[in-house]
Parts: sequence; structure tokens; C-alpha cells
Amino acid sequence: MRKLILIINDDGITSAGIKSLAEAMRGLGDIVIVAPDSPQSGMGHAVTIGNILKMRPEAFPVKGVEEAFSTSGTPADCVKLAINKILDRKPDLLVSGINHGSNSSINVIYSGTMSAAVEGAIESIPSVGFSLLDYSPDADFTVSKKVARSIAEEILKKGLPKGVCLNVNIPKLDESEFKGIKVCRQSAGYWKDDFEERTAPNKERYYWLKGEFTNPDKGKDTDEFALSMGYASVVPTQFDLTAYHFISDINTWKLSIEKDD
Amino acid sequence: MRKLILIINDDGITSAGIKSLAEAMRGLGDIVIVAPDSPQSGMGHAVTIGNILKMRPEAFPVKGVEEAFSTSGTPADCVKLAINKILDRKPDLLVSGINHGSNSSINVIYSGTMSAAVEGAIESIPSVGFSLLDYSPDADFTVSKKVARSIAEEILKKGLPKGVCLNVNIPKLDESEFKGIKVCRQSAGYWKDDFEERTAPNKERYYWLKGEFTNPDKGKDTDEFALSMGYASVVPTQFDLTAYHFISDINTWKLSIEKDD
Repeated sequence: MRKLILIINDDGITSAGIKSLAEAMRGLGDIVIVAPDSPQSGMGHAVTIGNILKMRPEAFPVKGVEEAFSTSGTPADCVKLAINKILDRKPDLLVSGINHGSNSSINVIYSGTMSAAVEGAIESIPSVGFSLLDYSPDADFTVSKKVARSIAEEILKKGLPKGVCLNVNIPKLDESEFKGIKVCRQSAGYWKDDFEERTAPNKERYYWLKGEFTNPDKGKDTDEFALSMGYASVVPTQFDLTAYHFISDINTWKLSIEKDD
Repeated sequence: MRKLILIINDDGITSAGIKSLAEAMRGLGDIVIVAPDSPQSGMGHAVTIGNILKMRPEAFPVKGVEEAFSTSGTPADCVKLAINKILDRKPDLLVSGINHGSNSSINVIYSGTMSAAVEGAIESIPSVGFSLLDYSPDADFTVSKKVARSIAEEILKKGLPKGVCLNVNIPKLDESEFKGIKVCRQSAGYWKDDFEERTAPNKERYYWLKGEFTNPDKGKDTDEFALSMGYASVVPTQFDLTAYHFISDINTWKLSIEKDD
């Protein structure tokens, strides 16, 4: 049977990134696209509970795409809808992206692109999210498409372990400057947040989140380091969040309640 | 200086759970509450990017609460606003909840309650999320409050390691049936999703997410097992998602691109 490839993103079905990803997957199998009908960046692993979801077929301007749908939901909702309402068999590969902007380091936590890949992994589908370090709507996806193709081919050959997906980030570089692909760990960076305070016409105060990414983690095995050196970073990513290294310590804590009775 | 305790939740500032948590923290320090103005369940680690946030002071009916604010944002937004716009010093403790409903096993990924705790940990604040396995608005928080108090006191004494917060779930039991508090790992459960399809008055199709939690993980060291035996579960939880165990394997993959030039 031909391979089945599910494509998801968080920038929305009309973004340049998802079109590039579909082009990169061409010929690897039957391609089905399920993507939000509007941008969902920063949605993390949100799912739509207590509200309805809508979904409709879309024309998608890339040869080799069997079917495409837009939904009113988040990237995680798109994965759930694809698996339960659209596809007649489990996909051999879920690819998410190509995101306009970085999902390296702590950004994996906030990322809608990666939430789709994580949701795929929860469903035991080999899954990977791709992000290009360029927010511009007319970003150049040439290198990103080759990276995505190379990694997709390897996953289709070798699979991924249970509970693991891949977080792939690609530097904003021409092909001539691009150094290659490196396996990394998630860098311990974070956002120094700030809010810009403004006043609405009705005198109400409101806030815009602004922030500056900060990376005190100088490890040479990190995604941030690889990207800064001109490499694409590949971080194997899991959804078991247990901090196993702290279990023996916390087991020495006095944890009990006094009962009234 | 008196301890500073920040309280966040995802069910919204008027929920019974956050009132119970404030009562449980009384006397441990100065208490400040920042919570969504409406329920945010299932929001995962969403943050508000590309839209404005509003915030306003609220009366909060619990003695010992210094200040309370509602915001239009997600739980993670509430943490960011508290740290950057409300508090004049870093909190000694961030407590999130008490959530109406379970955040054990894979639910940690979808949980707004836990996203606040994770956001706190990213900000190097000792942080913990509490959830009671009872969705009812008039749930009995007696046991939960004692568990929250006990764990908060231990954290204030001993701190938490960098990058680690706690995910605490409490079974729906009377005090007489409650067995105690157990440190656990995250159980490898998942949701068998389903969508109920309906037709709107305008004939458009729409979908409601339904699902059934399934736990094939029979480990006796899991949160699900502890809860089923009448214990509260404490899972140390981290935001470094790197699947370190797969790094040596994937380093044997052939990952490269062919350049056109």
C-alpha cells in the first residue's frame, strides 16, 4: 500500500510554509492536508473543549495532494480531526509546518507546530515539526524543503521510537551557507518578557506581550548552538514530562495530611 | 521579608477551586491572585501573541489575599502579567488550581493549570499545579486543601530544582477514605478521541470533541495507579522535552541535503 502522509501546520492553510512542505513531500506517498483556517501561533497544546469545530474541504495548489481541509480548530484539533474524521487508515508520517519562525529551545512549549507533532506521537504516528528561522511571509524555503525531505525519508525508512517525535529548526541561510543537519538537545533558553501598556479610546488600559529570547545555555550540543553555526537542529522530543532525576530526592519529603476525624 | 505566594488557575477567577487554594495558602505569606476572567481549560501552554490582553483588579472573598486580578489571557499569560506588571518581587511559590478535573497522565500536556506551573518553573519560581478528580462545580475540596497546604509548606522549606515543577492530582474521596500522598511518574495513558457530528440550522456540519481516557500503562509507580488506590499523586514535571534516550540512535541516521550549486 502507498504511504500516507498527513500535513498539519499552525500558520494556517494559506501560508507559504505549508505549501513548501507539501512540495517537499511530493512522491513520498498520498498526501492529505488538515490545517487551521487562520493562524494559531503560540497556541501551545491547546485543544477545543466546550466549543464546536468546523471543517471544510479546500483546493490546495500543489500537485500530489489528495485532499485538503481547513478547520476552525488548533493544530492539535487538526490532528484529532484528521485521524478520526478524514483518514481511513493511520498515517505513516505526520509532518507539521513549515513554521514561519523558530521553535527551538523553550519555544517548543509554546509552539502550535510542535503540538501537532506531539499529538501525532501520542497517537503513535511517526511525527516531525519543521520551522524556519524567518518570520517573513515571503521567506525562502529552499533549504527547509530539502531538510524536510531528507528527514521524512529517513523516518519512513527507520520509524521513530514510541513517545518520540522530532523538532527540526532550520537557519535562515542560503544553500551555499548552510552547513548540514545536527542532532541536538533542547537549549535551556527562555523569554525575558515585557508588556507594552496602552490606553484604548474608552480609556481602558491594555497590554501587548513583547519579549526577548535569552539563552544562558552555552552547551555545544544544543539546538541554539547548532543553528548559530549554520546547521539545522534536530531535537528528539517526548511528551513524558516526568523529571525522573528528582524522584529519589522528593521521596525524602514529609508529605502527609492530618485528618480531622 | 514575608513570603510571596502567587495563585493562578485555568477555571477562572470565580471558580470554587481557586477560592479553596487561597484558603489553603492562608498564613504562609502574602497572597496575590491573577486568574483568567473566563474558563481556559484545555488551553495547554497557549500564550496570547498578536492580540491584546486586558487586566483588572477584583475583589476576592478570602481573608489573607492582598490583591487579585482577572485577565483576558490564558494561564501562561497570567503568570507573565503577574511577574512583569503586578508583583514587585519574585514570588517564593506559585500555586495553580485547584483544577476541577484530572491533570494526571497525558492530561498534563493539555492542561492550562499545569501550563501556569510550567511557566513558573521557566521563570525559576518554585511552582506546583493542583487538580481534584471531580469536575463538579460544588466539588468537596477538603482533602485537596490539606494536600495543597502540606506540599506548599514542603516546597517553601526545601525549594525545587531548576527546571522542575510538581503536578499534583487528588482523588475524589472523603478524608476517611484518603490514603496519603505518593510520588509518581506520568502514566503513559492517552485519549481515544471521537467527534460527534451535528448539523447547524444553516445546514453546515460541525463537530464536538468527545473522548475516552485509556491507560494501557499498568506500572505501579504511575500517577494513575496511585490515584486508583486512593492516593494523591505528585509527579515532578520538567519542560526540557529532549528524548535523550534516542540521541545516540538518531545520530546513526543519514541526515544531509544535496546542494544544487
